[in-house]
Amino acid sequence: MGLSDFNALLSYAKYVSSHVEEVIYDLLNKEPQKLYDASKHLIKAGGKRLRPLALVLSGRMYGLPENLGFIAGAAVEILHNFTLVHDDIMDKDTFRRGVPTVHVLYGVDMAILAGDTLFAKAYEALGLLERYVPAERLVKAFKELTWAAVTVAEGQALDMDFEGRMDVSLEEYLTMIYKKTAALFKASLNIGALLAGAPEKELKLLSEFAEGVGIAFQIRDDVLGLVGDEKTLGKPIYSDLREGKKTVLVIYALSKLSNEEKERISKVLGNRSASVEELRKVAELIISTGAVDYAEKLADEYLSRGLNALNMTNPQDFEAKEMLKNLALYVTSRTY
Amino acid sequence: MGLSDFNALLSYAKYVSSHVEEVIYDLLNKEPQKLYDASKHLIKAGGKRLRPLALVLSGRMYGLPENLGFIAGAAVEILHNFTLVHDDIMDKDTFRRGVPTVHVLYGVDMAILAGDTLFAKAYEALGLLERYVPAERLVKAFKELTWAAVTVAEGQALDMDFEGRMDVSLEEYLTMIYKKTAALFKASLNIGALLAGAPEKELKLLSEFAEGVGIAFQIRDDVLGLVGDEKTLGKPIYSDLREGKKTVLVIYALSKLSNEEKERISKVLGNRSASVEELRKVAELIISTGAVDYAEKLADEYLSRGLNALNMTNPQDFEAKEMLKNLALYVTSRTY
Repeated sequence: MGLSDFNALLSYAKYVSSHVEEVIYDLLNKEPQKLYDASKHLIKAGGKRLRPLALVLSGRMYGLPENLGFIAGAAVEILHNFTLVHDDIMDKDTFRRGVPTVHVLYGVDMAILAGDTLFAKAYEALGLLERYVPAERLVKAFKELTWAAVTVAEGQALDMDFEGRMDVSLEEYLTMIYKKTAALFKASLNIGALLAGAPEKELKLLSEFAEGVGIAFQIRDDVLGLVGDEKTLGKPIYSDLREGKKTVLVIYALSKLSNEEKERISKVLGNRSASVEELRKVAELIISTGAVDYAEKLADEYLSRGLNALNMTNPQDFEAKEMLKNLALYVTSRTY
Repeated sequence: MGLSDFNALLSYAKYVSSHVEEVIYDLLNKEPQKLYDASKHLIKAGGKRLRPLALVLSGRMYGLPENLGFIAGAAVEILHNFTLVHDDIMDKDTFRRGVPTVHVLYGVDMAILAGDTLFAKAYEALGLLERYVPAERLVKAFKELTWAAVTVAEGQALDMDFEGRMDVSLEEYLTMIYKKTAALFKASLNIGALLAGAPEKELKLLSEFAEGVGIAFQIRDDVLGLVGDEKTLGKPIYSDLREGKKTVLVIYALSKLSNEEKERISKVLGNRSASVEELRKVAELIISTGAVDYAEKLADEYLSRGLNALNMTNPQDFEAKEMLKNLALYVTSRTY
């Protein structure tokens, strides 16, 4: 992707983002004040709004007017933020996007309720489309959003279960990140296309695209969690290790290390009182196995599969397709 | 309501309940096992399935086939259970329906996730109707369910806020219980009628019916919490007082008592380490003001309003209308 493509994408992303946020705040500037303040907190803190962007672009590919994409985009962005608010409680994460998490600021009870409110508001956003799209398509969009919500919860359950296990396989990891990360990206692309009335064959290709890009994105995110810095991450370094997350890097390293080294890792992984120095040593041990290279190759493979599927789509708006390709390259790029 | 009417209602309730549960378990017998075990726990523990019953009956009034009512009934019952699972975390309730609550058995994290899963599954249940009802009606049902989910969350936020206040007015209390209790009852009745294609005028009457009955039901529940026994309640006695809930009884009593007596109450209300003896004394003080009589009169008033609205409906199935009336009488009856 050239610099001008990149700039065009970023500028379009900003344009979409501002319109999507307008829809979101219309839905969330309500009372009781404290409930909606807690509900807005994480959204206000930032975020790249990648899912609405993907939705607007897939919609455009098959003729959905942008302004309808903004509304449906608000739905997937709100749903995404709901999952983050609740995940942060479960993972005991205290920072995200460079600010304290909702439960830290408002308490666990209010964070649970704020998440629930966001969940419902995602559906309310979709419901705004009632007058503008054929009901058959809107029902399919509701079902797709629901599939994503169920699947993301199942993914989070697996992720939590894996924290207590040292024998997680690569296959299990891939299933988990498909559910936890790729599913909502897939739903975003499908909702755009469904609302536009795209044919089944195109939906299938978009799903393959989303699966590949979503998994590549999560693998890259796991790599970033090991080698990135706090500023880029917006949260404390090594939090994946501290929480005992079984990322592809950990799984690969465990398969390569001696029993003695494994023992060393297992003492630190998931140990919430481990020092940064201990965590750093474990990170170095993991990196020494070549886990980062391995993970990056795996991510590349998934990205290629995704891009091949996108390449085979046959939309009416080729500029949107091109931007979607650039979006995929951007979110999976290795600029740590 | 005569004994034979009562028996007919109970027998129909059982019939509906068993069909609704079939739909529910089809949606929840899934993996990961632990997530779905936690999600099913409270539903398995029992419950009267009043909301699905109301939905099936309102649907029947305007010609909705029963089997479609069972599916939509599963949606509102699952949504109801989602709210209970999360409310129990927030209210720190350890027993419900005579069994330990989900967060006690599975931990807070899993209970949050189980609630989220139920929330999504409620929508999945509605989505099952795609092939059987016109899409326009189904979209309206999705919107009604969403309205209820948003409103119930707002009601819970008010309820929590009131716990920390001693100056809650009767009007605020009524708004809160409308949102927390009546809203989902209203949505249940409306979804049945919407799916049947009932005219706007009938929907409005059903909403008034639901509002009256829902509020009367909650007032009765609050009275039960003060004068009922643990076996009937399925949870520890005086938990409303221990949690500092501002029920109509507390609000009425506070308006009648001397400053000294108010002081006594405020020391115990919301004090989680208060002894049963202290709570009992406060309960007696509240009862001595005539709060129970007052609450019962208020409940009767709301019930009458509700029944008047139902009386004005003009359905095609009068047996269903009669059963709905009996349902209202049953859930608001004073047999403590």
